[in-house]
Amino acid sequence: MQFLSDNAAAVHPKVWDAMRAADGPQPPYDNDGLSQGLDAAFSALFGRPCAAIWTATGTSANCLALAAMVPPHGGVLCHREAHIETDECGAPGFYTHGAKLILLEGEGAKLAPGTIDAGLAAIRKDVHQVQPQALSITQASEYGRCYRPHEMAALAATADRHGLGLHVDGARFGNAVAFLGCPPWQACQGAAALSFGFVKNGGMGAEALVLFDQGLADLVRLRRKRAGHLQSKGRFMAAQILAMLDGDLWLENARAANLAAAALAAAAGGRLMHPVEANEVFLVLSDAERAALRGQGFSFYDWGPAGARIVTAWNSDPDHVAALAQAISAL
Amino acid sequence: MQFLSDNAAAVHPKVWDAMRAADGPQPPYDNDGLSQGLDAAFSALFGRPCAAIWTATGTSANCLALAAMVPPHGGVLCHREAHIETDECGAPGFYTHGAKLILLEGEGAKLAPGTIDAGLAAIRKDVHQVQPQALSITQASEYGRCYRPHEMAALAATADRHGLGLHVDGARFGNAVAFLGCPPWQACQGAAALSFGFVKNGGMGAEALVLFDQGLADLVRLRRKRAGHLQSKGRFMAAQILAMLDGDLWLENARAANLAAAALAAAAGGRLMHPVEANEVFLVLSDAERAALRGQGFSFYDWGPAGARIVTAWNSDPDHVAALAQAISAL
Amino acid sequence: MQFLSDNAAAVHPKVWDAMRAADGPQPPYDNDGLSQGLDAAFSALFGRPCAAIWTATGTSANCLALAAMVPPHGGVLCHREAHIETDECGAPGFYTHGAKLILLEGEGAKLAPGTIDAGLAAIRKDVHQVQPQALSITQASEYGRCYRPHEMAALAATADRHGLGLHVDGARFGNAVAFLGCPPWQACQGAAALSFGFVKNGGMGAEALVLFDQGLADLVRLRRKRAGHLQSKGRFMAAQILAMLDGDLWLENARAANLAAAALAAAAGGRLMHPVEANEVFLVLSDAERAALRGQGFSFYDWGPAGARIVTAWNSDPDHVAALAQAISAL
Amino acid sequence: MQFLSDNAAAVHPKVWDAMRAADGPQPPYDNDGLSQGLDAAFSALFGRPCAAIWTATGTSANCLALAAMVPPHGGVLCHREAHIETDECGAPGFYTHGAKLILLEGEGAKLAPGTIDAGLAAIRKDVHQVQPQALSITQASEYGRCYRPHEMAALAATADRHGLGLHVDGARFGNAVAFLGCPPWQACQGAAALSFGFVKNGGMGAEALVLFDQGLADLVRLRRKRAGHLQSKGRFMAAQILAMLDGDLWLENARAANLAAAALAAAAGGRLMHPVEANEVFLVLSDAERAALRGQGFSFYDWGPAGARIVTAWNSDPDHVAALAQAISAL
Repeated sequence: MQFLSDNAAAVHPKVWDAMRAADGPQPPYDNDGLSQGLDAAFSALFGRPCAAIWTATGTSANCLALAAMVPPHGGVLCHREAHIETDECGAPGFYTHGAKLILLEGEGAKLAPGTIDAGLAAIRKDVHQVQPQALSITQASEYGRCYRPHEMAALAATADRHGLGLHVDGARFGNAVAFLGCPPWQACQGAAALSFGFVKNGGMGAEALVLFDQGLADLVRLRRKRAGHLQSKGRFMAAQILAMLDGDLWLENARAANLAAAALAAAAGGRLMHPVEANEVFLVLSDAERAALRGQGFSFYDWGPAGARIVTAWNSDPDHVAALAQAISAL
Repeated sequence: MQFLSDNAAAVHPKVWDAMRAADGPQPPYDNDGLSQGLDAAFSALFGRPCAAIWTATGTSANCLALAAMVPPHGGVLCHREAHIETDECGAPGFYTHGAKLILLEGEGAKLAPGTIDAGLAAIRKDVHQVQPQALSITQASEYGRCYRPHEMAALAATADRHGLGLHVDGARFGNAVAFLGCPPWQACQGAAALSFGFVKNGGMGAEALVLFDQGLADLVRLRRKRAGHLQSKGRFMAAQILAMLDGDLWLENARAANLAAAALAAAAGGRLMHPVEANEVFLVLSDAERAALRGQGFSFYDWGPAGARIVTAWNSDPDHVAALAQAISAL
Repeated sequence: MQFLSDNAAAVHPKVWDAMRAADGPQPPYDNDGLSQGLDAAFSALFGRPCAAIWTATGTSANCLALAAMVPPHGGVLCHREAHIETDECGAPGFYTHGAKLILLEGEGAKLAPGTIDAGLAAIRKDVHQVQPQALSITQASEYGRCYRPHEMAALAATADRHGLGLHVDGARFGNAVAFLGCPPWQACQGAAALSFGFVKNGGMGAEALVLFDQGLADLVRLRRKRAGHLQSKGRFMAAQILAMLDGDLWLENARAANLAAAALAAAAGGRLMHPVEANEVFLVLSDAERAALRGQGFSFYDWGPAGARIVTAWNSDPDHVAALAQAISAL
Repeated sequence: MQFLSDNAAAVHPKVWDAMRAADGPQPPYDNDGLSQGLDAAFSALFGRPCAAIWTATGTSANCLALAAMVPPHGGVLCHREAHIETDECGAPGFYTHGAKLILLEGEGAKLAPGTIDAGLAAIRKDVHQVQPQALSITQASEYGRCYRPHEMAALAATADRHGLGLHVDGARFGNAVAFLGCPPWQACQGAAALSFGFVKNGGMGAEALVLFDQGLADLVRLRRKRAGHLQSKGRFMAAQILAMLDGDLWLENARAANLAAAALAAAAGGRLMHPVEANEVFLVLSDAERAALRGQGFSFYDWGPAGARIVTAWNSDPDHVAALAQAISAL
């Protein structure tokens, strides 16, 4: 009974079907009909013109975006626990050629306008200090917290006021939209670039980098090739993404994962380290309690010395979820 | 009737089957059983210990290897028409942080020991000139030419004598081995790293970076993550590669492609720009002749103002091949 | 009456004399006799073998050292207020090709072994997180605090235990040694590399990068050239440095600056934000008080909204110092 | 009797005087009055508005310019024997973060419009090939050849037509202007950036990066700091440059060096490998002849197995020049 990560979940059958269907003769790279259709598909989804570019991983999506938005001598404001800071092995430094991540604080790994203002106020405007050009947030955050539409609007206004490009790391963007119940564009409003994740949500190996600032698209395409991410059989990546968009499968899958997490949250009560909004559940659990759960067949990651991270997925088995909820309640 | 590139060909059914079979619960990244089995599988294939690491593209395989072998202030000797020089959008400069490709000449895009010696002799050993640390060759070459085992031995000795690490770009390594009829290790002997290509040969999106210098493996794994190439569902990449190795499918596929190319070569006669050894056929064709062939439904790339590049694949339709051979003969 | 920074002070007459004396015919770069004598001069000063390499700025000295000690995917532990983090425009990211500065806390901009242990304990040993390879401290620190010999010994042991190379930013190393009254080697013990500053201490445009890990020297020389820091008339840089070493002029100058700072500290009493150990004095001063001092002709930098940084130099005019001390007392 | 290089020559007395005069109290970095006066001084010299920024070396001037003109994924067209390609240890790759130098041929290390057109025509306009954004030429060239004003105009038009920024490496720009006898602007017309060298021409350690495209200035200032080239006592660098401009000392010095070279050229007759236009003389000399000259006390570099490079300087001793001329004639 696996609750380690949604990135270990199976590939959705409709994604498989779409990939098989893509195996006809098609031009290589992103010259096939499927890849060529991404811009239109995402423009329709978001109700505004955008360019959409596949890449295999969230790390590459995030970093291609940042490298297009920030010069090598620049900086990116982000949360101290942002994925780009903690879990990408320095990939932003690689892709941006050494730009600095400037770390800010905020509850639940979310940033607030006041924190951004204060962070910027502490930077002298001279050649000795790194000047930030972008703001990167994660929706849902690294603790599964979601920015409400009015919070997004305030962040967007803050970024705009300071001349910062806004990047949204949406590795679990579907889960955020499923929770927020808002139109997708509201969940990332003001973003120049959104890393829209599908791999954790039923895909295999394709994420979409959605560029609302379409002027970044040519640059991203060059940099994608230069990073070795332009796959010759890209049609299979486009197929995955289009299958996820078709009939809003991405939203359906995210809702299923969120529902499972909510069931666990209900069972966890006072143990919750963070309110559960998406598909991640952070619990206070002692060593003995963790051992007890693992002894019953549940797998998950430790979170610090007295906690655990439990992640549900689009295909979390309802029986496993119910069993885990019961086991937590019984602790 | 498509002869544009083998990278546009279909995915082999056995690869599909292996991918589907990999869709059970497995740990993410390369902690799954399939990924963990790559070292042993390639060590068996080559008859010597090695580490093998999947990555999605030949460009990333080449550049991860070079970045592990060459410091940012160093250099790589390669042919003026090497893929790393001409077709990777500067990816070697990106991955190596600015190391220089030092370009050499050679017939058929192959390098000879004497050329390497002469190239090195022209470089002063001081801090003003870039000092090369690696030699990169392509097997089969960009013109489909293969290094014979004794040529590989001589190159390896040359590299060793000069303290250069040897990298082999094997985007079409299978085609080279199929032509040479030698044990695989002989086709890349002396290499510290081999980019073993599968995508052009029936795979979907997975190449193997084979490290005979196993000391490079940890470094490559870090850099792969840093480049955003550590896919969370890596099991599907390992599955592709293992399916290609199983029963020597890679060799069978390469033989089929080579056979098709040989049939075209036989028809081409004096039009051949290069002897056909692998699965690429370079022909002297006038504008009118190219138009005539295209008018009959054949697609291929121009090669300069009076030539064409025709590439066969593991699944080139025998009827299409026969038709093209006949059409060429009839010009 | 200038107390803005020691980097605005005049060049010492003996430095001028040495530069003029160097203007004979000499080979370029660092092939002249003066440059060739640096290794021996610093080995004698420190009582142990080392290589010493001139470079024009402290930023380049720091970053050449770090780039030689840390790979692009690595990290450097340093204080949150370290000069390399706050005042070099991201130069460490440039020279190291994107390695990360991992920020730690500590009073007076000094680091303690426990903080380093804790910082390292928070880093997972996997490919997802940046792994630090070096520790950089500043002697004297950015707040003019000095590491005592036993503190250096403890830091060196900590670095060694964790396999970290130790870099000492010694922009004001002379001031630290003058305060500590210990042999120079004790003030930087365990360091693989020391950026030994002379510009703030009577030089013009030459710092010494002292490499106790002599294995780094060839690498630093290559990287110095690659960074455009190998001046063709390097003899003038070596001349400055040798003049500073001759008769321990560096120590005499530093003592003079420290003495001036001590006089100001005595006058400042409870206004001191940090104990004064070297040649920097940080004072609590209101807007009105700062204005009052400036009205009397004293120039210095604000330090936050209610403070000031006053820096003395080797040639601070005793009358100016006395006047400022009196003015502070009279506030 | 030293003819190794003009970069080993003495510093001009007027430069010394100006440096000494600069040793009053001044703000650090480039906030002093001298540094602040550079823009006006060069605007006057060239008769058009420009920004001028000091840096210690020609390599850093060249590379700061290129990094401001070319993105990391871009390319620079230059001659195969350009200094940036052959003698800067890969510094362009470092400063530009991996952009490619695309090498062209041309007699005397000069480029012609037709060569540039042909070089560009060979590059496909797709994401697989590196796209050049700049053209870099050397005035006077690495073989001491000068671009005439009409040649500069043609190159500028070519660059403009292709959307390439034009960079002029003017390590010996003074020698070129002295030879051409034209207004300085004509010798670099169309350039966005000129590396105007002074070190080889009587300076100590300061070159001027002249930006006719003033939009590059802020970027260059940030990158200069990031490269560790913003010296705190920059006033001494500005002083050198202004002394060289004062009364056209740069031109006077260059004329003296050219005159000495012309005397040697007259003596060399049929031995000249290149017409002598600036202050470099390339001669066909056998091993025995080189040994004979060295036996008479002349020092110079070999140039290949049967040649020599002789460089004169602003202060070449007329007696030494006459002696060398006679010795060559007598061979």
